[in-house]
Amino acid sequence: MKLPANLESIINHLKRLPGIGEKSATRMALNICNWSQETLDNLSENLKSLPSLGRCQECGFFADEDLCSVCKSEHRQNSRVICVVENITDYMAIENSGEYHGIFHTLGGVLNPLMGVGPEELAIDKLIEKIQNKNIEEVILAINPSVEGDATCAYIKKQMNPNVRVQRIGFGIPMGGSLEYLDALTIGKALENRKAL
Amino acid sequence: MKLPANLESIINHLKRLPGIGEKSATRMALNICNWSQETLDNLSENLKSLPSLGRCQECGFFADEDLCSVCKSEHRQNSRVICVVENITDYMAIENSGEYHGIFHTLGGVLNPLMGVGPEELAIDKLIEKIQNKNIEEVILAINPSVEGDATCAYIKKQMNPNVRVQRIGFGIPMGGSLEYLDALTIGKALENRKAL
Repeated sequence: MKLPANLESIINHLKRLPGIGEKSATRMALNICNWSQETLDNLSENLKSLPSLGRCQECGFFADEDLCSVCKSEHRQNSRVICVVENITDYMAIENSGEYHGIFHTLGGVLNPLMGVGPEELAIDKLIEKIQNKNIEEVILAINPSVEGDATCAYIKKQMNPNVRVQRIGFGIPMGGSLEYLDALTIGKALENRKAL
Repeated sequence: MKLPANLESIINHLKRLPGIGEKSATRMALNICNWSQETLDNLSENLKSLPSLGRCQECGFFADEDLCSVCKSEHRQNSRVICVVENITDYMAIENSGEYHGIFHTLGGVLNPLMGVGPEELAIDKLIEKIQNKNIEEVILAINPSVEGDATCAYIKKQMNPNVRVQRIGFGIPMGGSLEYLDALTIGKALENRKAL
């Protein structure tokens, strides 16, 4: 059962996407076969134009100018707080919560020596530099809990001027979560992070 | 949190795929952003070339010539058995099982008056014509079990010359299935389709 070469190639590309295996990719590709030439042309043009997307010098998010719409705001530029995230998806999650109004910094990952990701591969130097230039007083490390994430936070803290307050986002029971179904580590963290009422 | 227009457009296209929602599409699109220009160009060219893919006149599967590699074989062309499937994915599933060696016919869907799919929208006339021209003796309806599928089978059977043997694939417990977890309808079908040992 051989599919045409261009269809096979599309399937191979789709398989590289997160959470997409051989079966899903085939299903998606066969579905795309029913799309109109106009739709496919439009999608192709958009795909080709992706690498020319500008990035914000501040946070690494997409931007038409030097700064993205979030970082451009004067209010943010005068902020003394910086939020450090691993990647753009985490940045979007924090921004969409509507609870943070400072500037952002995207690391581009976490330290992972086994996968060849050392401090040079991450935008840590740029972060230190930005903290000095902008007189940042507070650094919020919004880095996911994992061995690598913990190591990255510890490394960043060590590089930092001791006058800068470095904090990490809180860990505990998620809203709507149920103690019954949560793992022991999360419950342990939630107990550790208990707050007076 | 506004994404660039081309990225938004890609997300909207991906959302049309089966099983892909807003969140998955965004995740996939952000992943695609990291692909090289070469990969994106290659994918774009392949996408654009999809509508020019030829279809097999026999079964509706992709083909470079008039007939696909399966239908081209002389052995199949002389077959007196035709297997009727809803779409190409079902055709691939049957062919990959390796248990069927006759020719195929793709209907392009099932009768669904509520969705505006009548007999004219399906390749039923072509099937009748093919059965006559090729002196087909046996029709295997490999149509999924559903109200619409059942109605389609009944309709096809009614249109057929009574000398042609019309059969439908067997329903019952799938291999590796467990009675404990199967629905009552399947178990009912399995009991109905019991076989002497």
